[in-house]
Parts: sequence; structure tokens; C-alpha cells
Amino acid sequence: MKNAVEKATILSQALPYVQKYSGKIIVIKYGGNAMINEELKLNVIQDVALLSEIGVKVVMVHGGGPGIDAMLKRVNKEKKFINGLRYTDEETMEIVQMVLAGQMNKDLVSMISQAGSSAVGICGMDAGLIRVEKHQGEDDLGYVGDITEVKEDIIMDLLDKGYIPVIASLGTDENNHAYNINADLAAAAIAAKLDAENMILVSNIPGLLRDKDDENSRIPCITVAEAEKLKEEGVIAGGMIPKIDCCLDAVRQGVKKTCIIDGRVPHSLLIEMLTDEGIGTMVIKE
Amino acid sequence: MKNAVEKATILSQALPYVQKYSGKIIVIKYGGNAMINEELKLNVIQDVALLSEIGVKVVMVHGGGPGIDAMLKRVNKEKKFINGLRYTDEETMEIVQMVLAGQMNKDLVSMISQAGSSAVGICGMDAGLIRVEKHQGEDDLGYVGDITEVKEDIIMDLLDKGYIPVIASLGTDENNHAYNINADLAAAAIAAKLDAENMILVSNIPGLLRDKDDENSRIPCITVAEAEKLKEEGVIAGGMIPKIDCCLDAVRQGVKKTCIIDGRVPHSLLIEMLTDEGIGTMVIKE
Amino acid sequence: MKNAVEKATILSQALPYVQKYSGKIIVIKYGGNAMINEELKLNVIQDVALLSEIGVKVVMVHGGGPGIDAMLKRVNKEKKFINGLRYTDEETMEIVQMVLAGQMNKDLVSMISQAGSSAVGICGMDAGLIRVEKHQGEDDLGYVGDITEVKEDIIMDLLDKGYIPVIASLGTDENNHAYNINADLAAAAIAAKLDAENMILVSNIPGLLRDKDDENSRIPCITVAEAEKLKEEGVIAGGMIPKIDCCLDAVRQGVKKTCIIDGRVPHSLLIEMLTDEGIGTMVIKE
Amino acid sequence: MKNAVEKATILSQALPYVQKYSGKIIVIKYGGNAMINEELKLNVIQDVALLSEIGVKVVMVHGGGPGIDAMLKRVNKEKKFINGLRYTDEETMEIVQMVLAGQMNKDLVSMISQAGSSAVGICGMDAGLIRVEKHQGEDDLGYVGDITEVKEDIIMDLLDKGYIPVIASLGTDENNHAYNINADLAAAAIAAKLDAENMILVSNIPGLLRDKDDENSRIPCITVAEAEKLKEEGVIAGGMIPKIDCCLDAVRQGVKKTCIIDGRVPHSLLIEMLTDEGIGTMVIKE
Amino acid sequence: MKNAVEKATILSQALPYVQKYSGKIIVIKYGGNAMINEELKLNVIQDVALLSEIGVKVVMVHGGGPGIDAMLKRVNKEKKFINGLRYTDEETMEIVQMVLAGQMNKDLVSMISQAGSSAVGICGMDAGLIRVEKHQGEDDLGYVGDITEVKEDIIMDLLDKGYIPVIASLGTDENNHAYNINADLAAAAIAAKLDAENMILVSNIPGLLRDKDDENSRIPCITVAEAEKLKEEGVIAGGMIPKIDCCLDAVRQGVKKTCIIDGRVPHSLLIEMLTDEGIGTMVIKE
Amino acid sequence: MKNAVEKATILSQALPYVQKYSGKIIVIKYGGNAMINEELKLNVIQDVALLSEIGVKVVMVHGGGPGIDAMLKRVNKEKKFINGLRYTDEETMEIVQMVLAGQMNKDLVSMISQAGSSAVGICGMDAGLIRVEKHQGEDDLGYVGDITEVKEDIIMDLLDKGYIPVIASLGTDENNHAYNINADLAAAAIAAKLDAENMILVSNIPGLLRDKDDENSRIPCITVAEAEKLKEEGVIAGGMIPKIDCCLDAVRQGVKKTCIIDGRVPHSLLIEMLTDEGIGTMVIKE
Repeated sequence: MKNAVEKATILSQALPYVQKYSGKIIVIKYGGNAMINEELKLNVIQDVALLSEIGVKVVMVHGGGPGIDAMLKRVNKEKKFINGLRYTDEETMEIVQMVLAGQMNKDLVSMISQAGSSAVGICGMDAGLIRVEKHQGEDDLGYVGDITEVKEDIIMDLLDKGYIPVIASLGTDENNHAYNINADLAAAAIAAKLDAENMILVSNIPGLLRDKDDENSRIPCITVAEAEKLKEEGVIAGGMIPKIDCCLDAVRQGVKKTCIIDGRVPHSLLIEMLTDEGIGTMVIKE
Repeated sequence: MKNAVEKATILSQALPYVQKYSGKIIVIKYGGNAMINEELKLNVIQDVALLSEIGVKVVMVHGGGPGIDAMLKRVNKEKKFINGLRYTDEETMEIVQMVLAGQMNKDLVSMISQAGSSAVGICGMDAGLIRVEKHQGEDDLGYVGDITEVKEDIIMDLLDKGYIPVIASLGTDENNHAYNINADLAAAAIAAKLDAENMILVSNIPGLLRDKDDENSRIPCITVAEAEKLKEEGVIAGGMIPKIDCCLDAVRQGVKKTCIIDGRVPHSLLIEMLTDEGIGTMVIKE
Repeated sequence: MKNAVEKATILSQALPYVQKYSGKIIVIKYGGNAMINEELKLNVIQDVALLSEIGVKVVMVHGGGPGIDAMLKRVNKEKKFINGLRYTDEETMEIVQMVLAGQMNKDLVSMISQAGSSAVGICGMDAGLIRVEKHQGEDDLGYVGDITEVKEDIIMDLLDKGYIPVIASLGTDENNHAYNINADLAAAAIAAKLDAENMILVSNIPGLLRDKDDENSRIPCITVAEAEKLKEEGVIAGGMIPKIDCCLDAVRQGVKKTCIIDGRVPHSLLIEMLTDEGIGTMVIKE
Repeated sequence: MKNAVEKATILSQALPYVQKYSGKIIVIKYGGNAMINEELKLNVIQDVALLSEIGVKVVMVHGGGPGIDAMLKRVNKEKKFINGLRYTDEETMEIVQMVLAGQMNKDLVSMISQAGSSAVGICGMDAGLIRVEKHQGEDDLGYVGDITEVKEDIIMDLLDKGYIPVIASLGTDENNHAYNINADLAAAAIAAKLDAENMILVSNIPGLLRDKDDENSRIPCITVAEAEKLKEEGVIAGGMIPKIDCCLDAVRQGVKKTCIIDGRVPHSLLIEMLTDEGIGTMVIKE
Repeated sequence: MKNAVEKATILSQALPYVQKYSGKIIVIKYGGNAMINEELKLNVIQDVALLSEIGVKVVMVHGGGPGIDAMLKRVNKEKKFINGLRYTDEETMEIVQMVLAGQMNKDLVSMISQAGSSAVGICGMDAGLIRVEKHQGEDDLGYVGDITEVKEDIIMDLLDKGYIPVIASLGTDENNHAYNINADLAAAAIAAKLDAENMILVSNIPGLLRDKDDENSRIPCITVAEAEKLKEEGVIAGGMIPKIDCCLDAVRQGVKKTCIIDGRVPHSLLIEMLTDEGIGTMVIKE
Repeated sequence: MKNAVEKATILSQALPYVQKYSGKIIVIKYGGNAMINEELKLNVIQDVALLSEIGVKVVMVHGGGPGIDAMLKRVNKEKKFINGLRYTDEETMEIVQMVLAGQMNKDLVSMISQAGSSAVGICGMDAGLIRVEKHQGEDDLGYVGDITEVKEDIIMDLLDKGYIPVIASLGTDENNHAYNINADLAAAAIAAKLDAENMILVSNIPGLLRDKDDENSRIPCITVAEAEKLKEEGVIAGGMIPKIDCCLDAVRQGVKKTCIIDGRVPHSLLIEMLTDEGIGTMVIKE
């Protein structure tokens, strides 16, 4: 009985968090490298299901680099990166679309179904959800798109009917040609358009570290201003820059709060959302 | 972090129960003797709030014997029992109404409000909710009523709007005179009319014991048929008879499941509803 | 037949008033001293029922000084007034809550039910309806509250579903402790929040008299400006000051019209609302 | 003040009738001969407006024999009756349609508008409301139709939006040619299809008289069985036969109650609906 | 089969126009002289039905000069025009109302019904739709009204329920007396109040001609500014002035686009709305 | 102008068909071999868009054999057929899912978007839409499923919001493993569950031919009984058997009408739905 009381007490302690997030929109970006371990993947899915069941309006956004690489390899197509960004020619784009919208997206839907909840897998090509223009940068990256518009109706329609929308990070240009999009940026643009309460990037890092070699130096929370300062100081560097920039972008466009959490920690989503325990790094306006 | 993961894992284990009860109606009878300890009372209230927040349609029904006794004493009115049932003359009825609908009912509403949720306190006199006729028995008990009709509209209206209805066990006869009603029976009649998924009697006993002196002899679950047999055998005896009868009544009228749980165990409601731990005694059809 | 035609002609003459008030919100404050005569009380209730049935959205607010006094006497608690205001200690507050929310509130609901309509009795403690802070004055009055916020959702929800909300003038502070509130002020605050078409104080006086000893000197209508002048002139004096102030308050916050009518006149509510006969004193903006 | 109280008391006495008819559908047939006196016409219109305002769902059906005769005379077209029924050739039908749907219908709408309420004038040709086939009788009556179907959607749509539907008794055959219909029969068919609470024929007679020469011999209420007997006895004779038959028809098809009242009595509709005074003759099932 | 493919190809080419007008409000003024040929009338009706069925919200407005003239002649009432405008005395007004609201309006409804769709015929007198004041001009024209207000609720209610509103150009003054209104102006006022996508005047001319004697000199489209210039130049002259002014009025009040098309061309409405072929003259803002 | 009139006349002739299908559900199975010609594919898509825009509730179901074969070839996986049915091992299933749900499904959505309408691409794995069990036949076919349940909610939700659902013929078993399903059977099961008005199989044959070598011997319409007879006679043979069986299945389960039409004819869908020209073979109940 003591065990039962302890469990129930922990459940009971979630009350203020449940009240806080009930009916609110949360965008969860779940991606490539955080997907590798099957058990952790199951944890994330169960967390998403639980959050949805207790009344949180969960929107899941995903990319899928490793899956794309694997498929390219199977069709003997060499992958090509320019300054760290995937070059996406017509043939690669075809594979990207198949892997993201056909494989990863439906697999996630299937796992949510297995967890007892109901999800619908779409991508930015459905119902004109994500409109892009060809990425304008120094190098031609092929079919890589910059988001120009999010038409959020289909997401709201699915949330209204009680489904968990699972969204593959693809978009179309004005001729309805498919484009590859960075999933972090897709999550930020969607979160901004939906006035989300929270955008959570589930990653495979412990958060922002003051000393990148010391996991105990995690910075739990920064403001926009502090982030700019940490970038100047070089604390935010390398692969952290695009992640933090993505959070800053979302916050500046009205998302209340963004977090980078460690998908390698079991049930990290629930820790972030329903407990008073700290995990990862939060980026807020001020 | 280990602590956080453990907490989150326990939260996660509630998923199947949340899915099971989401959107379902649960009638919780919370009564006199189970109300005595202030901390446990707070636990019950928080549990009710949590269940409501995660999407369970919670209806709370209460009586209040001890409060009535206390108030009668303050006005120097002697309480009178006939064969264990309160004799309710006009003056007593006035006190019963004030204590149940004015004191206990609003105090429960206030505690739920303090727990961050929103409750509305009504009684069987509101919107014609509970219609009674004078109790027909060997002895004249005064204004003690037998329920003849439950007009559940006001309960459904409050649930639809997201409030927790808290209901004092009073009713009116065809001349709209107030009557005292047994709260267990009121809960059963309401649960039956609402086709409730579960009616839970929060009591101050550990459940049905095979040997009344051995708390370890608790019977976790019985069917209607088994209950009848246990009554014949004398295992169900004394004060347990009306409690079990009330459960049987509810089950026979269509309530899916009824439970008698121990309100002295912290968060016993959550243990019963959201964990796989056993507590109290469940009465089901077959 | 002549009799029938006369009756029907009178009914017919109500048409413009019915058209005027149909679908509009009217707050009726019905209080202590106007409640004494049982037959007049029945008249008021029937009027409320009729107004509600013909499409007026009636909200009833009540206090209950005499009932509180009577109950305090029964529990041998001396009542205490400081400068005309009731001092409300913890024990008194308990009695106030029981009498207002348990006795008077439910008795009014029961009478409306007897008149064939459907009412729901709540108080300012339900669904966070009335939030107060401790009254700030020269003297400490105990649990006497000044209204800081009206959260009108529960009233609108009940009106939408066709119920007559009957509201006991209680409120809670930020710790959800119960407080006693002046019922006139509660009615004014509620009327203001609901943008009511009319707030009617049913009292036991004929209205504002130019000469307080001459009932024929009743002033049928005053504007805010005129009221201020009459206060300076001493025509509005004594017990009339808080009543008129309450009307001024409501009008200034947007209530279209307020009236003080004489509850001792049979069906005074219908006279005020549905006939072209004058009764009481109306206070309007300009 | 005494006058005011008397008026208010009469209003108050309407409460049970208002409660009884609120939200119920009442079909009022208002016709040719009962329309002659302008003041009485105004009375009927005001009564219809009042009933609608207090929540009765009023449907008005009208014919217009005298207006048709007058217009035929103006165009020098001789009116022709065969066994008391109007022979309606193509030219007459054109006049009937213009007078009923263009003149009388819109004049009634206009008067209701003048009384402050909102009506929409339609006829059986609108939205396929009344489908007929050519009257099958001994004599060819031209474009006189027997009702085969009432498609009540447009009536319900107008009632739902708060309008008073005013319906001219015209219909169309399967080729959408216009036909003349007896207005009493149109009212009965509509009342039956709408499951009306009451169908009232406003006529220019005092009701059914046991002795046709003695206005004091009015029979206030008869059942279907009694009506059949009175027809055999010759008490129901001449022009009363089609009127009573029309009531019997309606009652047999499910209308709760039908009445023939005297439109020459001021506010006869209100007397019938909102007072306990008797007027006219009621026909009920049993 | 070749024939079938050609037909289907033409249907297919309507796609962009269907997408453009789906759910949009179109006001079609269909009037006197364009109504003469029965086959063309049938074409217009079928076009209206088709537009309504494919999701366009069609509102039909009509006058009926020739029908009025014919009826006046039948009752031996001389028609009288003052400076080209009909003088409408009381007797003429009565005929106007009967012909417009009783004859033409219901005949149009009946034809739409015959085409398989569902229309409801109303006029500006119904539900207070069109309020007028007596026309203020040099000459007294009797009951000729200038529109002061359009209360569009009944139109929106009918459109919402899927009916085609057919509206006779009548209105009432503040005393609810009927008035005659110019149907072009009624269409423009209604189109403006409804924020219509398009107002189409179906006339019996080919549109605005640069050279009035050369049908090939049709001007397909003009802006408000161009129209003013063409008036100065005398290209817009005579009977074209009020038609173009009516379009200008509508466009200035917010109607997106107005057209004058030739009702003598079969299916001219469909040509204008669903094909890329030019017909008539379009008037747009700029 | 003559050209314009002809076009408009053809549009006008579609009226009875538009009225017939407006608001009705039509399931269109569009599949592998009928997809080959890009221009015809565009025709089909435009037809689907037009039907949807004019109010038909279009549901599109597709398979994609050729695409699967092509992809298998690219990954050097040999395709394997057992008695004409694809053997689907784990690796093949992965390819099937990617091609159907990721490539073909989203490409169709994208083309509909390009045609100006709004589609959402899902598969039987989304929201538990299609539940299967492993195909029970003589031979083990691997992950080939027989449909056991269609949970149509997501389709209805999408139709309600105005989207065209495009459905890839995949399903899941009770462990939420993905399965390949015959697209014709998926269309039939969906049409049956939705009580569709019509299920259309867009194929690459002219319909059922009495003499398979004579395209002029097409049988335009057969009943269930006739189909059974033609099977006995050997007229329905070979590849026609499963197609006709699929139609029979759908009709027996309540679909009003099914058709096999020739996708090689331009706009064959519009010919079938909106013209009186015959195409393909219709299978009806009787």
C-alpha cells in the first residue's frame, strides 16, 4: 500500500502542471538523432499520448536525416552536403519525400496508435500547410526550401477533432513542387503561427552547457538578451547556434516558451511538462 | 535526475487509465466520517481536481452527518434516531438544509477552488434535480425522503461547461418541501441516471473484509451474485449491508462498476482510478 | 366575457414592454426586509418566474440580514454592529454562509420551482464568481469583503441553459476564505459585469421621497447629476444614501437603468417592468 | 396604484399558461370573414405578436375570399361557385395568387411589423411547402387542390430564426402550377405536420352552439367521439361541418388540441391562450 | 464518345470559376424587359439554379414594370409617368404590391422549383428588409421610395439554410406603408449591404456601346473613373445613365464587381460567371 | 458569341446531375495502370477538384503497383508474385509503405493543390482507419491484409472541413504493424462504411465487354443477378472477375451504385457523373 500511496502522491503533484497546460498548444520537434534508441522512442511516444489524453493540444513535427541517408544508400545515391547542408537534387527529393512522409511519419502514427491514442500523419504538402521558396544562400542547395507561409487550418481542424497531428517537414513552392525543410525551423514556424504555449526540441544533448565538456554546467534558462550575449562569448557555438537561433526565432514571433531537452533521458517530455524537476535549457523572451 | 525519471515513469504508467476514463462520468460519494482529517480531505479534493483536469467528468455527492450533529448541538436541539435512522422533524430539516447546502457544500467548492479547479455547489432542490416522496417504512422518520426521480439536466449542463458539480444530498417532494436523503443512495441514483462508468464510495473502512477483524482479509472484487451469497453467509453484515446494497442497486441500474474505498489512505481516489494497485472492494455485475 | 376581454386587453398592453426586455439581462436584488410578508414573497417569486418565462434573462441576488440575526440568536451568538455595519468574526461568518447559501438561497429556489420554473442557487463562492478583499475602512469588520472581481461565466452558462440563477451575496478572498458582502453592492457589481438592461432593488420603501414624511412626494426618476445635487441638498439622506450610491455605481459602470421599487406593493416587479404605471424611483445616466 | 396592482395581478395570472405554451407550436388560421373589422384585425395581429414574443412558436395561415371577390370584380371577372366551392379557372387562379400572396399576405406581415415584431410572408409555393393534386370530386373545380404533402422545412427554419411565418393557402402540383387551397385545410395539414400543440381557427362565429339561435348554448369542449354523435344529431350542421371536420382531421393526425374561436371578440386569441376564461369551442381527441 | 469528351472538357474548364465564386454572394437583378421571352426566362432560371447548386450564394432581385402595366390596364387604371418615373398613387401601389409580391415573385419561385432547386419569395416588406422614405425630388411621385436601410438578416438566414432568396423590389416607410422601389437600386443596396462579390443586371441590351448604333463597339470593362469620363463624353447617355450609376453606386459601397449583361443571349449568366468568354459590360472600382 | 452560348448550354445541362450528387459521398478508386499518362492523370485530378468544388463529397482511394515495382527495382529487391498476388515480406512492406503513403499519396495531394483545391493525404494507418488481419488463403503472402474494420471518423472529419481525403491502401493489424491491401477492396470497404452514393473504379479498360475482343460490345449496366449469370456464362472472366466482385461486394453492403470506367478517356469521371453520355459499366443492386 505504501508503494501505491507514493505513486498516487506523485500523480497528485502533477495537478498544477496539468492545470497550466490543459487546452494549450505544445509543438514537439522530434528528430533524427533522438530517435535512434527504440525504447526511448517508445517513451517519447507514450509521453506524447499521455499529454494529449490529459488535454494538452500536442503537435508533433519531425525530420529524419538518418532514415534519408539509409535509403539513399539503398538506392546507391551518394549523399552530398554543402557547408553542412544537404544538397537535394530531384532524385534525392523523391527519396526525402518517401522517407519522411511515407516511412517515418506513418511509423510514428502507428506507434501512437499502439500507445492507445489517435494520430494523423500529414506533411507540409497537405492542404497547403507549408509554403516555401527555394533557399536563398551562397550555395545552390537544390530543393531546400525557406518557409514563407504556414496555413495552419488543417492542424487546428485535426486538434479540434481530438487527433494528434504528426507533421513531416516538407513543403511546396508556388508550383506545388516538393521541398525539403529543416525540421527545427518547421517546428518554430508552426509554433509561432499557432501561438503555442511551448515549443520543445527533443534532441540528443543535455541542453546548453556553459562548459561544453561538463554536463553539470547546464544552463537551465536563458532570455533572448542573454542568448545574444552567450553567442558573443562563444558559449553558444557550433551545432548549438542553429538550435538556439530556432528557439529565439520562435520566441520573438510570440511562442511563450521554448525548450531544448535531452531525448536520451527516459520520459524527458513528462519531466519538462509535468514535474518541477529541471531538464534541458529553456529559452524565453525576458 | 534519477528522481525525475522515476516520477515521470510513474506518470507515464497512468496512460492506460487516463485513456480508459477520459470523457467518462465518475460519481464520487464523499461523506461524513471520511471527512474528518483535514489533510486527507485536502487529498480527496486534489484528487477530484486532478481527475477533472485530465478529462474525467467527476460528479461529487456528499452528506454530512457529523456536521449536522454539531449544529443541532449548537442550537440545543437533541438529535433523535429511530432504528439507526435520523428522525428529521421540521426544525431538524432546517438545520440539515443549512449545514449540507450552506456549509459543507460550499466548503467543498471552496477547497476545489483553492486546488485551482472550478466547482459549482448545488443540491437536489436545484432545478428539480432530486424528487422524493416521504420515506415509507415501519417508523415515521419525518422529512426523510425516498428518491423517485433524478432530473439530471443541471448536472450535464455543468459538466458540459467544465465545472465539477458538488451535490448535497437533499431533495424535494411534489410540494417542493425539502427532504433529507441518504447520501449513498443519492450517489447511486445519480450514477444510475448518468450511466456512470464508476461510482466510488469514499468511506472510512478498508473495504469488505472476509474476517472483519483482519484488515488483510480484504475482498478486492465481488459480483452481484457473490454479494448475495456473502450476505447469506454473514460476511456482509451490519454497517456493510447498506453500503453493499447501494453498490448492488447502482450496478443493477446500469452503472458499470462501483467501489468502496478507504478515504483514510492518502490519495485513495487516484490509487483506485489511475494505478494498477488494488484498494478497497469493487462490486461489478458479473 | 367582458371580464375576459378586459384581462386580455391588459395582457395585450404588455406587448411593447415584452418586446423591449425580451432577451435582455435584468438583475433583481431581493433582500432581507422586503422578504418578510410570505404572500408578497410569493408575488415576487411569481413575477420573477413570469419574467423569465417570457424571455427576460432574470438574475436574482439576495442577502438575508433578518435570517442571519435569527440564527445567531438560536446559537446564542450576540450580533455586533460597528457604525451600522455587521462585524463578522469567524463564527458569525460560518452562520452567515449557512443561512445565506443553505437556507435563504435554497428556499428561494424551492419557491421558484413551486411556481413552475427552474432555478439554480449558487453563491459568490461557486466557480470563482465573486472575488473580494477584506473591507478596508476605519474599523475592522472581520470577514466583510469589498468586491474586486466578478467572474460571470457561471451566470451566463446558467442563463444560456434557461435557468434562473439565484445568487447569495458571499465571496471569497485569494485564499478562498468566505466573506460576507453587502447584497446591494453584489447586485450592482454583477449587473455592471453583465451589462444588464436594468438593476432593480426590491426594497421596503416607496422610493426616493422629496419629503421623507410624504409618500406622495416620490421622485419617479433622477439622473446621476440630479442625484449628486439631491445629496448635497439633503433630500437623499440616511439609509437612502447607500441605496442611491449603489444605483449610481451601477449606472456609471454601464448598467442602462436602475430602480428602487417597493416590495410591499403586490407584483411591484411586473408593474415596473411590464406596465406604463410608475412605481419607485429610477436612476439613469442622463 | 390600485389600478397598477390590478393590471400586474392579471399579468401574473398568465404565468401557468405562458409556462404551458412556451416553445410550443401554435397554428392560427385567420381568415376572410374574421378580417373585416380593422380594429379587430389589429387586435389579432397584436395578440400574435405578443404570443410570439413570450416564446410561443406562432404560425399564421390565411385565406382571403372577400379580397379575391373584390379583385375579381375590379377586373370584371364573374366569380363562379359550384356547390358552394369556388370554380378556379386559369384567370381566376392568377387573381387568387396575386391577392393571397401579394396583397393579404404582405399586408399581414406589414401589420405585424407595425406591432413591433418580425414576420416573413410565404405561401405554399415557396420552398415546395405545399404539394397538391387537382381536387377529385364530382365537379371539376379547376385549379383547386387537395393537399398531398407538406414539406415543413421552411416553416421550421423561419421559426428557428425567430420570425413569425405568415402563410398564404396556395400550393403547387407536380408541374409547379399554382393551385387554390381551402385555408382551414391548409392550417390543419400544417398543424399536423408540425405536431402543433394547438390549432386555432379564428372565425366570425361564437363557436359550436347546441341551439344555433342561442349564443348562450355554446359547447365549450367536445371529443372526437362526441363530435361524431353531434353530427348525427344534426347539432353540427351546415357551415359548421367543414370547420369541425377540419378540427377532427387535425386532432386525428396528432395535433394536441384545436379550437374554433370568435374573432369578433377583442383579443380572443389571448383569452383562449393565456386566461382561464372560456371562449369558442375546443375539439380534442378524448 | 468524342461528343462526351468535348462536353466534359467544357465542364472541366469551369473549374477556376467555380473555385472563384464558391461560397460567394452574387446579386442578380432580373427585370421587366429581360423577362419577355419565355425560353430565355427559363434559361435564366436554370442558370440561377445551377449557380446555387455549385455553391454560389445567389440572391435574385426583381421588379416588373410590364406586369404592372398589364394589371393596371385590366382594372382600367391609367398608368401615369412624370419625367419617366411612374407616379404611384394608393390604388396603383396596391396593384404594384400584388403584381410584384404575388404574381412575378411567386412565378419565379415556382420556375426555380420546376428547375429542381428551392427558392423562397419575399419582398422588402418582409422582416423589415427594406426601409424607405418617400422619394424626395422635384415632382411628387406618390408611393415611390428611396432606400434608407437594408436589414439583411432574412436574406442571410435563407442563404444559410440553402434557399435562393427571390426578392420583389418593395419597401416600407416608418409607418409600414408599402412603397414602390426601383429594382436596380434595390439590387445595388442589397449587394452593398451583403458585400457581394458581383452584382449582375440582366438587361435587354448588349452592354455599354461606344457607338450606340454598333453592337460590335461594346466596351467590356470600365472603372469608376472611366465611367465618369464616358458620361462627360456623352458615350454613357439616356437610359444607360441610371444603369451605370447604379453599378457605380454599388461599387463605391464595396461590391467587388458589377456587370450589365444581355438577357437576350441564352445562358448569359453562365457565360458571365463560368466561362472565359466576354459578355456585356463590367464596372469595377479601378 | 455562338461558341460562348454552346459552352454555357453544356454547363447548363449538368444541372440535374449536380442536383443529384450535391452533398453525396462518392468514392473514387484511382490506381496504378490508369495513372500512367501524365495528361490523363491531370484530367482525373481536375475532375476530382471540380466535383469537390460543386459540392460532391469526393473520397479518393489509390494503390500503386507500378510505383512499387519501380522502387523495388531501384533497391535491387526482386518482386515476387504467388498466383498473381504480390508476396510482401518485411522489406517489401517497407517499400510499399514508402511508395504508397510517401510518394504517390503526396504527389496526388500536390496535384490537387495545383488544381486549386485542398486535399489531405492519409492512409489506412492514420487514426486507426483500416484494421486488417493477415490474409488467410492457400499461400502465405506475407504482409497482405484482409480488411476487418473501417473506422471512418477521420474521413468524415476531413470531408466536414471541406478537404478531399486521399487515401493510400494500407492498413494495420492489432499490433499496429503495416499491411498492404488491394486498393479496389479498400475502396469498396470504405464506400460501404460511408454509405456512398457511388463507387467508381477508374481503370484502363473500356468496361465489361460481352465480346472481349469487341470494344463496341460494352455492357453499360448490370444488376447483381445478371453479374452472377455472366460469370457462369464466362463473359465475366479473368481480370474482370475481381473487379466485378469488388463492385458486387460494395453494392451488397449498401453502396447505391458502382461503376468501372475507362481512365484512358479524357475527363471520364465528369462524363460518368455530370453528363447523360454512357461510359464504362455500372453495377447496381437490381
